[in-house]
Amino acid sequence: MRLRNIPGAEQALREYPTFVDNPTEYKGRWSERFGNNNPIYIEIGCGKGRFINTLADRHPDVNFIAIELKAEVVLRAAQRTEKQTIPNLAFIQYNAALLPDLFGAEEVSRIYLNFSDPWPKSRHAKRRLTYASFLQTYKQVLKKHGEIHIKTDNENLFEFSLNQLSNERFQLRHITFDLHHSPLAEENVMTEYEERFSSRGQRIYRTEAIYQE
Amino acid sequence: MRLRNIPGAEQALREYPTFVDNPTEYKGRWSERFGNNNPIYIEIGCGKGRFINTLADRHPDVNFIAIELKAEVVLRAAQRTEKQTIPNLAFIQYNAALLPDLFGAEEVSRIYLNFSDPWPKSRHAKRRLTYASFLQTYKQVLKKHGEIHIKTDNENLFEFSLNQLSNERFQLRHITFDLHHSPLAEENVMTEYEERFSSRGQRIYRTEAIYQE
Repeated sequence: MRLRNIPGAEQALREYPTFVDNPTEYKGRWSERFGNNNPIYIEIGCGKGRFINTLADRHPDVNFIAIELKAEVVLRAAQRTEKQTIPNLAFIQYNAALLPDLFGAEEVSRIYLNFSDPWPKSRHAKRRLTYASFLQTYKQVLKKHGEIHIKTDNENLFEFSLNQLSNERFQLRHITFDLHHSPLAEENVMTEYEERFSSRGQRIYRTEAIYQE
Repeated sequence: MRLRNIPGAEQALREYPTFVDNPTEYKGRWSERFGNNNPIYIEIGCGKGRFINTLADRHPDVNFIAIELKAEVVLRAAQRTEKQTIPNLAFIQYNAALLPDLFGAEEVSRIYLNFSDPWPKSRHAKRRLTYASFLQTYKQVLKKHGEIHIKTDNENLFEFSLNQLSNERFQLRHITFDLHHSPLAEENVMTEYEERFSSRGQRIYRTEAIYQE
């Protein structure tokens, strides 16, 4: 189910030590790859990579993995690392719908979904990363009480996501309709997209969802 | 904790067969008052009464009780009944914070909170009808899988309510940020306030919360 990518991007990715070319080999044993038992936080869809790079820098006691479908997008995000080895950061090019190929049960402590494609047409609802089938996939890899952190500027996607999450029995927490004017703004790490849109006055919606089962 | 009321209103209320002057006497045995075992739905804060009167008319197989703190407000709502006896409708003047005075455990199937006072100042948060202490009170009378249905035009109250409900382990359902442009609009019964505000273009927020414990 991989997209066909620009061959050059795939080739170029291999020059980055943060890029993991054979990610399915680490399923269930990412702790070996990172050399520690720190919790694993993943970002699905990493954009230009500022978010995950900033978090990895701020939180050396957490292992971060960015998962992105398109090689050229992963490449751009990995390029921020300037070919350095960053011990707690990895980039993967893979389809998030196949997350259990990459992680064993309870291997993931947190999932970030930042400004996911809203797929506004009803007939595309199944493609939204908070559609029930995706949430069920996330449950296959999340720890009990593991978390999904969602940010979006799209109100309809936010409304949809709250309903899907509730329906899948996630407990919601810190729901905010205007992140940048909320008490959570201070610790918020902005994505490139977020900075651009919020500077135009666009509100950012955010929630955390806790896996209960 | 009753408000001091206009004596005339309290007196006038007694002329309405739908008004229950001694509601605490029916705690745990409202089925006797209604003469059946139909489910009991309550509205806390009944405004001018159109909502509860319309529902009682549409759903003869449900018993409806409106609870309102102020005698003059209850009176206005009861006046819609034109002194008729309506077998599945009752009005109570009482403080909703003391709901367990009125109902036994699991006696209530549904609670409606329509356009409750948003109490916008933080220091008044405890007065909001979706503040944790109120939700805990509702749990004392709600059936398992009983429901709270909330409508408001106040976004901050809605955000606050979603968080409080989630935190109190209610499961959320049918969250909508724009009720009148949602699939739920068709079956929606508008309150007087709702009609006035939505006609000005004000959006209406709505959610259902299911009691899980």
